[in-house]
Amino acid sequence: MRYGEGMDSALPLVERKQKAARERIVRAAMELFAEHGFDSVSVSDIADRADVGRTTFFRHFGDKQEVVFAREQALLDTLTVDNLGPAPSDDRSAGSALRALEPLVLQMCAHICEDPEEFLRHEQLVEGNIVLRARGAAKAQLIARRLGALLIESGWDDGTANFAGQIALACYETARAATERPETLVQATRDAFAQALTLGSKRS
Amino acid sequence: MRYGEGMDSALPLVERKQKAARERIVRAAMELFAEHGFDSVSVSDIADRADVGRTTFFRHFGDKQEVVFAREQALLDTLTVDNLGPAPSDDRSAGSALRALEPLVLQMCAHICEDPEEFLRHEQLVEGNIVLRARGAAKAQLIARRLGALLIESGWDDGTANFAGQIALACYETARAATERPETLVQATRDAFAQALTLGSKRS
Repeated sequence: MRYGEGMDSALPLVERKQKAARERIVRAAMELFAEHGFDSVSVSDIADRADVGRTTFFRHFGDKQEVVFAREQALLDTLTVDNLGPAPSDDRSAGSALRALEPLVLQMCAHICEDPEEFLRHEQLVEGNIVLRARGAAKAQLIARRLGALLIESGWDDGTANFAGQIALACYETARAATERPETLVQATRDAFAQALTLGSKRS
Repeated sequence: MRYGEGMDSALPLVERKQKAARERIVRAAMELFAEHGFDSVSVSDIADRADVGRTTFFRHFGDKQEVVFAREQALLDTLTVDNLGPAPSDDRSAGSALRALEPLVLQMCAHICEDPEEFLRHEQLVEGNIVLRARGAAKAQLIARRLGALLIESGWDDGTANFAGQIALACYETARAATERPETLVQATRDAFAQALTLGSKRS
């Protein structure tokens, strides 16, 4: 399965409407943040521009910060064990756990920089604001824990699974810091996984 | 050098007074958060209880959240290359970088759970509040980047250094998630480093 693939026409009308409202909220928020800066925009401003009530806003998002990470949250919500890479059934080591996570994390990277301009706008918005940087870091931690939970569901023990989830996040963060161009994020993340997977070999 | 060792009597009077004010602010904030909950306490409440003006508060802390992480920030401010473990001068691999970080991270762990009760109070406060969880995650990222910067200062290349900083943070986060008792945090972190340092060996 690829992330973010919509089959909107297959959804019942109510869900289609909810999804459309959510998308309008995200678009309105991003426009307003770009126009006035994150701090100067209120939830009411966003709701007005998106043509929804505040109640609808809060049905979709816990607060204004969450809208900025709508994409990450949507990714998080769609992650299942089916996204894990193959692993030999008799090998439940930390190395095999990390190898199982790699294709999933690479796919996530590819997804979040699918639209390079949007990626850079997002980065710029987040970097410029301590509250957003913090929320982004918290979201990344949630993803690491979710990765660990998927491994547990697939038969790895808790300790190994959570360790691998954290190492996978470390690989992603390394790549994120090393690359300023969204086009190279996937390759940089792949390189970081390779480096992690050879940490204990000879003189690594 | 051990962290948090004070030589207060050697400081000039002005600095001693500033340090005392900072400590009063932290103590007042922690009392107020415990009494009324984080969200119900304002910067003015804290300044009043600490018997300082708001200007003094903001000289020490950027906002209310920062007070909660005063200890982490103080740690961050004292980290220097002298805290790194020894590394053979001809080995600037990712493994040697991680080994150089290990004693430093273990010492940080020991420092933050020196007072187990305070550690648990802090954990409880942070876990119950999304804004604080987020700030904590951002602070952890700052520490990872600082660890990378120390390695660069000591001769590792940027890529290897930043990678090792992130892996060190991953080890700490793994231990943090695995242990509920502050008494076992140091050992759990040591175990996670051992696991990272054998990732690529045979069937790790």
